[in-house]
Amino acid sequence: MAHIKVPEGVPGIRSLVLFRPETGKYLYELVQVLLRGESPLTQPERELIASYVSYLNHCMFCMSSHAAAARCLYGDEKNMVDEVLHDMQHSHVSEKMKTLLHIAGKVQILGKQVSQEDIDEAGKQGANDREIHDTVLIAATFCMFNRYVDGLASFTPEDAEAYAEMGKRMAEKGYVMPQQAT
Amino acid sequence: MAHIKVPEGVPGIRSLVLFRPETGKYLYELVQVLLRGESPLTQPERELIASYVSYLNHCMFCMSSHAAAARCLYGDEKNMVDEVLHDMQHSHVSEKMKTLLHIAGKVQILGKQVSQEDIDEAGKQGANDREIHDTVLIAATFCMFNRYVDGLASFTPEDAEAYAEMGKRMAEKGYVMPQQAT
Repeated sequence: MAHIKVPEGVPGIRSLVLFRPETGKYLYELVQVLLRGESPLTQPERELIASYVSYLNHCMFCMSSHAAAARCLYGDEKNMVDEVLHDMQHSHVSEKMKTLLHIAGKVQILGKQVSQEDIDEAGKQGANDREIHDTVLIAATFCMFNRYVDGLASFTPEDAEAYAEMGKRMAEKGYVMPQQAT
Repeated sequence: MAHIKVPEGVPGIRSLVLFRPETGKYLYELVQVLLRGESPLTQPERELIASYVSYLNHCMFCMSSHAAAARCLYGDEKNMVDEVLHDMQHSHVSEKMKTLLHIAGKVQILGKQVSQEDIDEAGKQGANDREIHDTVLIAATFCMFNRYVDGLASFTPEDAEAYAEMGKRMAEKGYVMPQQAT
């Protein structure tokens, strides 16, 4: 049961933004522009960063839902998601994505962990400033969402089917503020 | 020097939102509603939570600027801020605020660290669901800001005077998206 009285049976972040829509509104707008807006990183790449950071933060809800969204968006390459969550360095993502995921992992620990060497390595693999910026902000943003969702002990479904459905909705419709407790 | 090409000499978060205003807009709107909008927590209490979490995350820029804003807003009780940053449990904040700052400290580590016992203790001291919600979301949000600011190595002024001025502006004008690199 959640730590505060949120609508029952509504999973994760959705129950929290229904409890407090004044802040929820901007959380949804932020994640929509960050994961669906214009960026040199593709939508599946951005969902993968979100899922990877949530995995490092042990946030089952965000990890599973964004992994499901990434699988939908990767389509034929959907195994990439599980490969990265299992062993990022030996996965088939590009060398550039490996350097960006490495930076995201440093951000997950703490901002100052990101070294000039990490940035130079990403640059050598062709990452530009916008890609580095978006990687750091996505990683930082999920350090927020993960703590919000788990810090209030919001409802975390346990069946894979629920996440597959969520991922499909997130991939197709993006992030739309829920209007009521359904 | 920052890890990406942001406007020179512009401190912290301001340089980053000028680099990427599409996301910056929502970051400013979020922090404005969270720290200045309607809440059962006072504005200085909310700034204190922001500064305390930034201190725990070793983010000098956010810690110093939000401490300065809290000092302005506390007015006669401005020493409270330094007391809390020095030794929260022995400071003169209310027992209720101690339980909320304790929860914020747990969120800083990771969401799942917040226990039912922590929530019950806050409840016993009179904290309601909205106060607990806002505490967790402020703590989570500053886990994001701290990582964004330090993860891109944005400019962190070192003189106390610069922060005193920033704090005054934040206390008086709130959070307004900067329009240009000044």
